[in-house]
Order: sequence, then structure tokens, then C-alpha cells
Amino acid sequence: METEIISIGTELLLGDVIDTNAAYIARKLSFLGIDLFRKTVVGDNKERVSRILRGALDRVDLVITTGGLGPTEDDLTKEAISEVMEEELIVDEEVVKNIQRRFSSKNLPEKAIIKQALIPSSAKIIINEAGSAPGIILEKKGKIIISLPGVPREMEKMMEKVISYLSVKKIGKECIQSRILKIWGMGESQVEEKIADILKKQSNPTIAPLVGKGEVHLRITAKFENKKVREKKIKELEDKIREQLGDYIYGVDEETLESLVASSLKKRGLKLGVAESCTGGLFSHRLTNISGSSNYYNCGIVSYSNQAKSELLNVPPSLIQEKGAVSPEVAEKMAEGAKKAAKADIGVGITGIAGPTGATPEKPVGLVYIAISAQDKKICRKFIFSGNRENVKWKASQAALYLLNKSI
Amino acid sequence: METEIISIGTELLLGDVIDTNAAYIARKLSFLGIDLFRKTVVGDNKERVSRILRGALDRVDLVITTGGLGPTEDDLTKEAISEVMEEELIVDEEVVKNIQRRFSSKNLPEKAIIKQALIPSSAKIIINEAGSAPGIILEKKGKIIISLPGVPREMEKMMEKVISYLSVKKIGKECIQSRILKIWGMGESQVEEKIADILKKQSNPTIAPLVGKGEVHLRITAKFENKKVREKKIKELEDKIREQLGDYIYGVDEETLESLVASSLKKRGLKLGVAESCTGGLFSHRLTNISGSSNYYNCGIVSYSNQAKSELLNVPPSLIQEKGAVSPEVAEKMAEGAKKAAKADIGVGITGIAGPTGATPEKPVGLVYIAISAQDKKICRKFIFSGNRENVKWKASQAALYLLNKSI
Repeated sequence: METEIISIGTELLLGDVIDTNAAYIARKLSFLGIDLFRKTVVGDNKERVSRILRGALDRVDLVITTGGLGPTEDDLTKEAISEVMEEELIVDEEVVKNIQRRFSSKNLPEKAIIKQALIPSSAKIIINEAGSAPGIILEKKGKIIISLPGVPREMEKMMEKVISYLSVKKIGKECIQSRILKIWGMGESQVEEKIADILKKQSNPTIAPLVGKGEVHLRITAKFENKKVREKKIKELEDKIREQLGDYIYGVDEETLESLVASSLKKRGLKLGVAESCTGGLFSHRLTNISGSSNYYNCGIVSYSNQAKSELLNVPPSLIQEKGAVSPEVAEKMAEGAKKAAKADIGVGITGIAGPTGATPEKPVGLVYIAISAQDKKICRKFIFSGNRENVKWKASQAALYLLNKSI
Repeated sequence: METEIISIGTELLLGDVIDTNAAYIARKLSFLGIDLFRKTVVGDNKERVSRILRGALDRVDLVITTGGLGPTEDDLTKEAISEVMEEELIVDEEVVKNIQRRFSSKNLPEKAIIKQALIPSSAKIIINEAGSAPGIILEKKGKIIISLPGVPREMEKMMEKVISYLSVKKIGKECIQSRILKIWGMGESQVEEKIADILKKQSNPTIAPLVGKGEVHLRITAKFENKKVREKKIKELEDKIREQLGDYIYGVDEETLESLVASSLKKRGLKLGVAESCTGGLFSHRLTNISGSSNYYNCGIVSYSNQAKSELLNVPPSLIQEKGAVSPEVAEKMAEGAKKAAKADIGVGITGIAGPTGATPEKPVGLVYIAISAQDKKICRKFIFSGNRENVKWKASQAALYLLNKSI
């Protein structure tokens, strides 16, 4: 079955609010194997909503709307549906009672309650457990319209019921399965070149390259009725891709570089000390986003000044003088100093030029040295990252996480 | 002039990526007074893109697309535009040279370069300073199509040029003006309650409350032909709101807490030292996102372990033992220790429980103490923040920036 999503709300057109609902629904649909063909955003204008609804129903069988179900004058979704589907709107007494019971303390005006309790005569109601406006499912003339509120936590709660409904109706293909391979250290076009032969031959499973933040993802999607066949086909393709990309693939699906580092450190009982300069705290921030990070993250030093590098990390001032603060020698000393200061097993040192200022003819913006000092091995690598200040910070933190993950 | 935005990319339909571009563009258009009527998301399918493009051009005069300009097979935006607008695609040698120059080290395949250099014959080129694929502006048959890449930082940079172009063409109504008041320390409903009388009377200028990340924004929008009248009306309303909200308004428009802290520190020639525990580097990361921060940010210590608090920040182990690591006394000592270790003028100390683990009956998740130690004043404040780990980290960093800004 083919689907479209319509997000309704003038605030979405003004850009004040980012439409996260559509992506949420899209993700749920893709797991059900329902193909989404289009998402549209429109303001609170009945005529325009009706027009888009008509267009969507011409093209597809299932339309999901969010927004415009509330109590105010500019909430017009049900009115548009009623017009397009030729359905009378009738006050549902159950809904009225429900809202009165839930909002008894809030003194909601009668008019606002009635407005939200207006339901197209043949529609099913989806109870809203997190708010007042109910959702609706309307099946008519071989088409299905599902309307959900725009408030994300209300919509998300109600999507569970929608998923059950769609599953029972067996609308999805129920034969789709995906696996995401996460790649660090290669750009999108390099990845595509490396696996060009595999990409050329793809049909089922398909491969979709996606550009993530400082990394590339390959999404393998298989469509087969039989679960075992799906898994086997995905596995075969994954193996072929791994042959080409090897270590560049750092993880799969929900794994992130920080989650992998975290679980490796935890498993081995190792403690970490960090010295970061150009990343300015971002590397530590990412590692400490993981719950339980105090088990392996001892301490980090954001050593912006040379004085901090010398006094807190024991980098000899003469070395900084001679080689420069952005040099492999200083990165190595920072890693060792961090390990020692944090009384840790592994030290990480990051120094570079995040830009836009600070470059010299020999040392461009984006130049970053990353050193790891572990018990039995020491590494130091040089990078030149492109992009603005925030990009360079992010990419340097990615690279440091990747190297750290390899070193544990 | 009426406008539609088309976001192109299968990843947007799968929900893997949230479309922030459309909201960004919408916001910019609204400042220009250009009405946005519809936003559509469609996958990497030439036929579908063409169909949507045709529909949009039937309804409106200006269509802005993002995505699908890259080097790979599934980047098809220009191909669709060329079909719909009956324009031949021609390789632009300037663009080829540009890409070759910028990516000389990356060994980009010839085919990928050519693909990105294909330009509709009568289109203007928007140079991409942050990436390879250029954007285009195509004026034909009384319609305008503007195509930008999907990578946000590339698109955002190029939108500056689009805004200049649209301004020169005088396409917008030029009678809209907005001002955003940024509020910290109050929730949305508290703000609305405080200014309930003002909200009730609003007509022109209007006031729109928006919930930001850990803060609330009030957007004042005036529509008058005359610029002086617009400015006067906005000023009058702003003054009234400030009477009610006072110091809770920390800044306006593009100002952020970190940018305000940065400019105050720079103006006064003060240096900063940071000791952060529960924020895990986020506070330092936010401050060092500002270009030139090495002028005032000396050093930060992410003191997760008690040992780091004692050895690097001079917090007496007995104090930690007696009062606990999360206590006003330890926060104060951390601020002092950071000031000293960094040889700075001001020290910040942040300690708290980011959760979800680590709470005790007396000390719940979200409890955070923030201390500032300046030359002439010392403050320490207690907060209890709601939300998950990342929320608590963010809110604590907000609070610390707010307090620091007040202390300089």
C-alpha cells in the first residue's frame, strides 16, 4: 500500500517549529513495510488542506494527517476531511465526557470541548491518552484517512494504536527488513566507488547510501515473505560489502562510536583520561552522554591555553615552543599527561586548529593531531578536516572516538 | 509572491533524517515577508519530483528545492528541473574547475564532478563554499526555481545569497518585521501567565510564544508599510513585555547565552576557568563553539572522578566525604579550583546528577549546583532540572551560562 503524510499547521510553514512528526511516522511505516511516497506541510487553511487531501487520495490509498485537531478556530483538519469524504461531523458524547473528566480542573470552555468532539459520522475514534483531541480513522470508498494531533507526545502515543490497526489489516508488506552499516573515514562518493559493482547489481536487497554527521551509512533493505530468507540475503550482501570496506565499517544499526567505546571500556574495566584542545569539550561531552560513563571516564582537561597544557598535562613548554601546540609531539604528550593526571589506563590527546582563525601557512584550518596512549600501544594520527568550526570539532571528535575504539 | 518548498531525498521519507532545511528556509522567507504555502517531501525519483515540481509551478511563482544535487546516481533534481522547464543540462567548466581545485586531494571520480557541474542552460549558479555541488537559480516563463543542496551547512551558507537575490528582486512584501525576545528561567505557561494581559490585547504587532531548547522565545511581528512605524510599534510592545519579564529576558534575535558571555568576557579582558562534572564537557564545548574563544577561555576540567576534583581542583577529600560530591560546598571549591588551575579571573563550578542513575533519597536526578567565583563576588545556586540525561546536561549548561553572563 502506498501512503502520503500531510502535516497541518501554519507554525510549520513559518519555520518556528520543525516537523518531527512526519519523520517519526515515516520510520514506523517503513518498519511495517508501507511505502511512503510524499510528505506535505500546509498551513491552517481549510481550502488548501482540502485540496492537498484530494490530491493525495487520488494518488494513494492511505493518508495520515497530523495537526489541526485542537479546540481553536484555526484547527480545521476534520472540517476538511468531512468536506472531501462527504461525511457529516457529529458530536460524540463519549468524547465530550472523556474530555470533561480529564480536564475538569482546567475549566475548558464548552465550545472548545464540542469542537474537539466533532467526529466524521463513520469514523473510528483513537483515544488520546496524553491530551484532549482524539484521533480518527476513516475508511471509505476504498481509502483510509488517519488523523492524529500535532503535539508529538500525543501523536506518538496514538501511533501505537495506528500500528496495531495497520498490522491487523495486513496493509504493510510485512516482509521488509533493514540493516544499517555505519562507516567512518570515507566520503559518500568514495564508498560508492568502492562498492560500485555491488551497487550496480543491487535489486533485492537494495542498498541506500545516506550521509550522516561526519560518517556515511549504507542501508540494506530486503523484501521477502520469509524471515529466514530476508536475514540470509541481508547477511550475504553485508559480507560482500564488508569485503570491500573492511574496517571502515565501525558499527551497525543503533550503534554509535561513543556507545561502542563505552561498552568496550566497561567490558575491559579500563579507565579513560582525556586532553582535548580544538574539540573544546565535545569529545568528553559525547562520551559522558552515555549513562554510566562515570564507570570508565575519570577526567578530561580542555587545555586551550599553553599554560594548561604544561601545568596540568606536563607538556614541556620548550616542546610547545619548538614544535607548536598543534603538532604530533604535543598530541602524544597530551595523551600521556591525560592518562597520568586522570590516573587512567588510556589517555587521549587532541590538538588542532578548529578555525576560522589560527591557521598558518604550514598549518591550515582543519589540521588535527589525535594521539592515544594505552598500556601496550601508542598511536598518533594526522587529519585535515574540511568545514566550519563546528564541523571540524565534530569530525575531530568522530576521528578520536574511532581511533579510541580501535585501540581498546 | 507565493512560494513552495520541495525537499528531495528518500532518507527524508524513511524518517532517518529530519528535514530541518525546510524550516530554516521558511524562517528566512518569513523575515522577507514571502508567504510560504506548502512544503513537500519526496524521494529520489525523477518522475515523482517532476510531478511535484509541475504542481508547485502551477500554483505559485517561486519554488525552492533542497537535495538531490550530489554526485550519485540517485541525485536527480537538476534532471527533473531540466525536464519540467525544458532546459538542456550543460557542463559548466567553471564549476568543474572549482570542484577540482577544492577537492584536489580527495581524488573525486571524474564522473562525480561532471554530474555536479551539469547546469540548466539559462540558470545562474550559486557557488557552494562549503561543499561541491553548486546551487542554481532559474528564471523562466515568469517562474523562479531555486535549487540548493540538502546538506544543511551548505544550504544555509547559500541561503545568504538567495536572500540577497530575493531582496534585490523585491519579491517580499517588505512590510513585515520581527524581533525575538529570549527568555531563560521560566516555562512557556509561566511566561504566558505573566504577560496574559498583553497577549489578550495583541493584534498588530502579534506575539508568538515559542519553546526553544531550555528556554522560551517570544516573537513580536509587526506588519506596517512604513519602516519607522514598524520599529516604533515593536519597541513599544517590547518595553511592555520587559516590564513584566525583566531580567528573565537575556537577549534578542540572534543572541545566544554563549555569544553574550563571549562578548562580555572579551570586552572586559577577563579569562575563564571551568570545572564541570555533570555537564561532562558540554559547558566548555558550547563556549568554545564561538570563534576566538581562546582569547578568554583558558582551560576546563571535566572532573568526573572525586580524585580529579581533589588533585586537579584542590577540593578537600574530607569535604567530598562529608558533604557529598554534589553539594554547594563542593561546587564552590570547584569554581575556585578552576579559577586557580586555569590562572583565570573567573571560575565556574558545576556539579550534579545527570541521571538516570546516581540519585539518593536526598539527592534526586536533576539536582545541580552551579557556583561562580569572580574577583569581587561569589555565587552558588541550586537547581532541580527535569528530563533525561541529555536534557539535564543541557539545562545545567544553560543555567551556568545565564549565571555567568549575569556575573561578568
